[in-house]
Amino acid sequence: MAIEGSKEEAASGRIRLGMVGGGQGAFIGAVHRIAARIDDQYELVAGALSSEPARAKASAKDLGIADDRAYGSFEEMAKAEAARPDGIEAVAIVTPNHMHAPAAKAFLEAGIHVICDKPLTTTVAEAEELVALVKKTGKVFAVTHNYTGYPMIRQARAMVAAGELGTIRLIQAEYPQDWLTERAEASGSKQAEWRTDPKRSGAGGCIGDIGTHAYNLACFVSGLELDELLAQLTTFVEGRLLDDDVEILLRWKGGAKGMLWASQVAVGHENGLKLRVYGTKGGLEWTQADPNYLWFTKFGEPKQLLTRGGAGAWPEAARVTRVPGGHPEGYLEGFANIYTEAARAIRAARDGGTVGADVIYPSVEDGLVGMKFIEAAVKSSNAGNVWTKV
Amino acid sequence: MAIEGSKEEAASGRIRLGMVGGGQGAFIGAVHRIAARIDDQYELVAGALSSEPARAKASAKDLGIADDRAYGSFEEMAKAEAARPDGIEAVAIVTPNHMHAPAAKAFLEAGIHVICDKPLTTTVAEAEELVALVKKTGKVFAVTHNYTGYPMIRQARAMVAAGELGTIRLIQAEYPQDWLTERAEASGSKQAEWRTDPKRSGAGGCIGDIGTHAYNLACFVSGLELDELLAQLTTFVEGRLLDDDVEILLRWKGGAKGMLWASQVAVGHENGLKLRVYGTKGGLEWTQADPNYLWFTKFGEPKQLLTRGGAGAWPEAARVTRVPGGHPEGYLEGFANIYTEAARAIRAARDGGTVGADVIYPSVEDGLVGMKFIEAAVKSSNAGNVWTKV
Amino acid sequence: MAIEGSKEEAASGRIRLGMVGGGQGAFIGAVHRIAARIDDQYELVAGALSSEPARAKASAKDLGIADDRAYGSFEEMAKAEAARPDGIEAVAIVTPNHMHAPAAKAFLEAGIHVICDKPLTTTVAEAEELVALVKKTGKVFAVTHNYTGYPMIRQARAMVAAGELGTIRLIQAEYPQDWLTERAEASGSKQAEWRTDPKRSGAGGCIGDIGTHAYNLACFVSGLELDELLAQLTTFVEGRLLDDDVEILLRWKGGAKGMLWASQVAVGHENGLKLRVYGTKGGLEWTQADPNYLWFTKFGEPKQLLTRGGAGAWPEAARVTRVPGGHPEGYLEGFANIYTEAARAIRAARDGGTVGADVIYPSVEDGLVGMKFIEAAVKSSNAGNVWTKV
Amino acid sequence: MAIEGSKEEAASGRIRLGMVGGGQGAFIGAVHRIAARIDDQYELVAGALSSEPARAKASAKDLGIADDRAYGSFEEMAKAEAARPDGIEAVAIVTPNHMHAPAAKAFLEAGIHVICDKPLTTTVAEAEELVALVKKTGKVFAVTHNYTGYPMIRQARAMVAAGELGTIRLIQAEYPQDWLTERAEASGSKQAEWRTDPKRSGAGGCIGDIGTHAYNLACFVSGLELDELLAQLTTFVEGRLLDDDVEILLRWKGGAKGMLWASQVAVGHENGLKLRVYGTKGGLEWTQADPNYLWFTKFGEPKQLLTRGGAGAWPEAARVTRVPGGHPEGYLEGFANIYTEAARAIRAARDGGTVGADVIYPSVEDGLVGMKFIEAAVKSSNAGNVWTKV
Repeated sequence: MAIEGSKEEAASGRIRLGMVGGGQGAFIGAVHRIAARIDDQYELVAGALSSEPARAKASAKDLGIADDRAYGSFEEMAKAEAARPDGIEAVAIVTPNHMHAPAAKAFLEAGIHVICDKPLTTTVAEAEELVALVKKTGKVFAVTHNYTGYPMIRQARAMVAAGELGTIRLIQAEYPQDWLTERAEASGSKQAEWRTDPKRSGAGGCIGDIGTHAYNLACFVSGLELDELLAQLTTFVEGRLLDDDVEILLRWKGGAKGMLWASQVAVGHENGLKLRVYGTKGGLEWTQADPNYLWFTKFGEPKQLLTRGGAGAWPEAARVTRVPGGHPEGYLEGFANIYTEAARAIRAARDGGTVGADVIYPSVEDGLVGMKFIEAAVKSSNAGNVWTKV
Repeated sequence: MAIEGSKEEAASGRIRLGMVGGGQGAFIGAVHRIAARIDDQYELVAGALSSEPARAKASAKDLGIADDRAYGSFEEMAKAEAARPDGIEAVAIVTPNHMHAPAAKAFLEAGIHVICDKPLTTTVAEAEELVALVKKTGKVFAVTHNYTGYPMIRQARAMVAAGELGTIRLIQAEYPQDWLTERAEASGSKQAEWRTDPKRSGAGGCIGDIGTHAYNLACFVSGLELDELLAQLTTFVEGRLLDDDVEILLRWKGGAKGMLWASQVAVGHENGLKLRVYGTKGGLEWTQADPNYLWFTKFGEPKQLLTRGGAGAWPEAARVTRVPGGHPEGYLEGFANIYTEAARAIRAARDGGTVGADVIYPSVEDGLVGMKFIEAAVKSSNAGNVWTKV
Repeated sequence: MAIEGSKEEAASGRIRLGMVGGGQGAFIGAVHRIAARIDDQYELVAGALSSEPARAKASAKDLGIADDRAYGSFEEMAKAEAARPDGIEAVAIVTPNHMHAPAAKAFLEAGIHVICDKPLTTTVAEAEELVALVKKTGKVFAVTHNYTGYPMIRQARAMVAAGELGTIRLIQAEYPQDWLTERAEASGSKQAEWRTDPKRSGAGGCIGDIGTHAYNLACFVSGLELDELLAQLTTFVEGRLLDDDVEILLRWKGGAKGMLWASQVAVGHENGLKLRVYGTKGGLEWTQADPNYLWFTKFGEPKQLLTRGGAGAWPEAARVTRVPGGHPEGYLEGFANIYTEAARAIRAARDGGTVGADVIYPSVEDGLVGMKFIEAAVKSSNAGNVWTKV
Repeated sequence: MAIEGSKEEAASGRIRLGMVGGGQGAFIGAVHRIAARIDDQYELVAGALSSEPARAKASAKDLGIADDRAYGSFEEMAKAEAARPDGIEAVAIVTPNHMHAPAAKAFLEAGIHVICDKPLTTTVAEAEELVALVKKTGKVFAVTHNYTGYPMIRQARAMVAAGELGTIRLIQAEYPQDWLTERAEASGSKQAEWRTDPKRSGAGGCIGDIGTHAYNLACFVSGLELDELLAQLTTFVEGRLLDDDVEILLRWKGGAKGMLWASQVAVGHENGLKLRVYGTKGGLEWTQADPNYLWFTKFGEPKQLLTRGGAGAWPEAARVTRVPGGHPEGYLEGFANIYTEAARAIRAARDGGTVGADVIYPSVEDGLVGMKFIEAAVKSSNAGNVWTKV
């Protein structure tokens, strides 16, 4: 079952990877590094790990990056690495949101593939620029909407596509958290600081940080495109600069409807991402905290509990699975699947090739779709909660 | 723990009860009868059980009602029973919605207490008339928003009132079902027929049948009053005359927000009523299918699973509980609690008294609140999903 | 769905019921009374509710029993009621265990049907005497192994009988509680006092109080007979006179094996009765705290969550079900099913008839099987944990 | 939170690792490799990956191992690597059981640290020999009883040690699976073949493969030592050479009791390892399939659901945790924790040092304890299920 070590990949060597952001004290950088390691497809060899030069150097040393490849800025890194014969083939961008676009641009223009955290940028305009640049450069560009890497999410998507649910009528997506219930950004939490700061996060707070994840997942599984939305964004915590709760009505092209709720002040929820999809013939339910399970009901039949490695697993789940059923995989493995799928595309690109439809990772276009969602939600909310096209 | 058989109640004898509706083939009538029996507070002695005289008689015989108290119409019953020295003291109205108001009116005017199924009426105007009539007659009037009878819902309400959650910020209420996923009303289902028929149900389908339950529960537990709502009502099944899916944004007086979803086409849900309430200090979650549990999280502390009869049970739960923790109580016991609370009020009324604040049953005013909710939702939806005061 | 009010039953009137035990302060008496009421098959008209005459009278008054039918002893009651033209047809015996046999004997000899709490007696010899007496008198005798009344337990039994699990290999039964973790019998708990007193409970503590329930359920669902057992009974709480923890290895006739664990000192469990049955083709799991669910896995297929009123419900579940799927039924409804099944047998007996195989209630023979289990377990444990035939 | 990249470790470079077994078609080898990579503590540089030379070479190539370090036998590898200046510092032994002892011996004698799969050997005698050899050589020796690497298991152990449960009374351990429900070893399953073959597995089938895991976990969390056991081992599937079901009564030193059940024929279970521990003051429950949760009940207080990264997490859990609460970690992360703890010991050994008590990995002594358990269980079962000292 394990995908690691398949012949063709090892034969061509690990992909040389750089990283922007993710220095000491960061959270998501470490996640990206583990994700890149799990299937042994990448080797981290360069970094501009912090905007503070001293911390950048120290962080690089911690990670075993050679001194001469520990850069003080991404601009420097893009330039230097592009010039090396053994320069990085791909870069992971794991900075706060406002740095995504400039960094991505620099590396694309230097001919380097990009794996970028979400949301893609801080504005739709930036995102569109990136889409154009990816098209122009032909580079691989993956956005780490990591939840699409979970095996049972792959299966859910495949089941919807195969018609197991009939015509989709309803999508209920939610992502409640509680870590910003109080004003953590005023108590020294770095994570809270930048995520509630419009300068670094963009116009959306909760909507950009987690609402966009829920939306991406809804799109991914349902295969639908959103037509319009009606959003109510709220800031519950006094003094906070961005929304910390998001309630949205959804209208999908083709007639499906739904709701999306994301919150950072819902006490009792850690990372409660949940997706429910209902069609004329069946319904699905999946929860991120228990990701190895997928509930499926065919109308008029008993409810089934499908498991990642069990009798009801589809090939689409099995191909991104490493251990037998009943042995849980988690967040890092799902994240690793995005990295490994991107690796397949990057390897294919080495020879000027591309990958088949079975290889799935969120693209720059998906990132743009996410940015349009954020902007439409902010616009709808500001306009008094009116229907707004995305 | 069992409340049955307490001295003062038995001393005064069972309450003589009549029933309107609930004849052969009905569903909710049998539920009301069991609920009335569980704590031995009532004796069913009269009925106008069907609008078809033959069926009314046959149904009465089945239930051991004497022939001379098996009536062909509620008007006849109200008149005859009021004239008997041993006439009914209370009537249970369990007809389709459109009959609630006329029947309730007849019995109130005849000086008979009323226990009425929900929604209270088919229009706000009728509901207001009933409120006025109850005020004028001074009779006990209970509406069977039965979910408020569940012990852990009583506890949830008490916890919110005691400030355990701090200031309430968010309420997420949902009630998904799937029994109307296909056009059951065209395939001989009596239950589906009248519930999708505007003549018998009123202007709301799903919103009136179950949306109103979810809303009532949200009000009951939170203690909040709704300010305005923005609703999207949908009819997914072709040919259906009323809504079968309801999505609503909520704004509560005082600043809390929330969402309400009710659906009759969400495949995989039987009676998935769920309520989640979040405040500045804590969060609660309760699900009707597993009603003996109440999840409670105090911000910054581990999540607790409170059980109906366990160490974390509050007196408000204990007083409506019959069996020890770990022995589940269910729908009928919750329903019975409404009947028994109403019985306490009816007994008190025998002597011209009233009951204390600990005795809780949904009142005619609560029924009116429900009707205003239905009408506002229909109005908001028809107006293009705009904020509408309730 | 509701079974109440079916014509033939009402036509013949409620069954006149008496009760022995169950006076003020008792627990299980109230449960029996509610169970008897739920389907309106019985009317409680006489009682010897306490061994203390004053309390017996007061308790009877509380329950609306006429003064002249409030007896000071079961002997008196059996004699007087047998002599009345409107005397009781059946008696519910809800005393501590040591009174079951003498009371049951008195009523059987008076020609009165018996519904008796479990365990049947305090010795196998007494139980055998009762079996003989039931045979001789031809009276209906039901033992309230109430868990067999749960709809999904009925279904589990039917599924096993229909071969859905193939040949049974393994049975895992457990019933953990924690209410005797400390020495409650020394702190004024009446329930704890008699249940830990060998004079009133018999030779088994935990084994008799709840181990026997788990065993009965295992037999009921599997349809198997036990061959031998090997038991380790432990008293963890110092000063306690009877076992408070029970661990047993089981060998069933035909080759199946299994384990049974019951405990009164397992902190965190309220009434954690659970049964798991595994065969060559499938497996089942059921938990009393969540009784409306039955987990079923066919080997090589996805796990199914069968629900009491859902698409996977069998007729055997449906016939003892009152409300639709998703509306939970609980302990009292399961208990009521035993009463109602017994009522069917009692009504049939009025005309000298008997009931069909679909009518199921634990019989005096089942009670004897339970007593043999208790005695064998005590014997095995005392002999140093050796295999002992039941 | 992420432990990867801590300065002192990176400064000293990755540990050079070899592997015995784990070639193409194997399962557990890939797991070990991922586990070794997750925290970037190891680099796989040599291997004797298969007993078939051609497959050994091909497998090495797949994994990017240099040709001259792809060995045909472990003997050759131990010798050659010991002679290289850049030779492996540690070896992972992931063969069928019968090869563990000879391979471990060879590498220990060559001065190389060992990480060995479980069960340690096929006999107690071999295990004792290894214990002596480890003592003599002073090498690090870790046995991958990987479940001890789960964060909430670390916490459970810490809570017991801190007295949160009071004096331990009861331990219930179980590990049901269903993959050997039919005779998979006769249908071409390599995994089934060797695991049911006494020549490769030793005297125990189910008891050695998974019973020993459950037992190890019970010891690890409770901190108790077993005194004696009484076992019933069964082979349900005709033609199978080893036990496929295990039922054991346990007596722990100090008076605690318990049961252990492991099965490979329990339909519906994938890898259902579950541990429950009960003391005089509290109880714990943990399930491998949902490893991020730990249920904890303090006697007389509400049940708590402790989560890996939540408010109730202890430092012992936090130090082996990589991602925030609500983002699930799984089997591979738990396995990686064993590897990383061993890495800490190996790094310390580089300088002749040792690690503190906070660094925990199953030792060769733990492996011996496991072997004694297997032998005692087989002996007890063969002797007719009698108490047997371990």
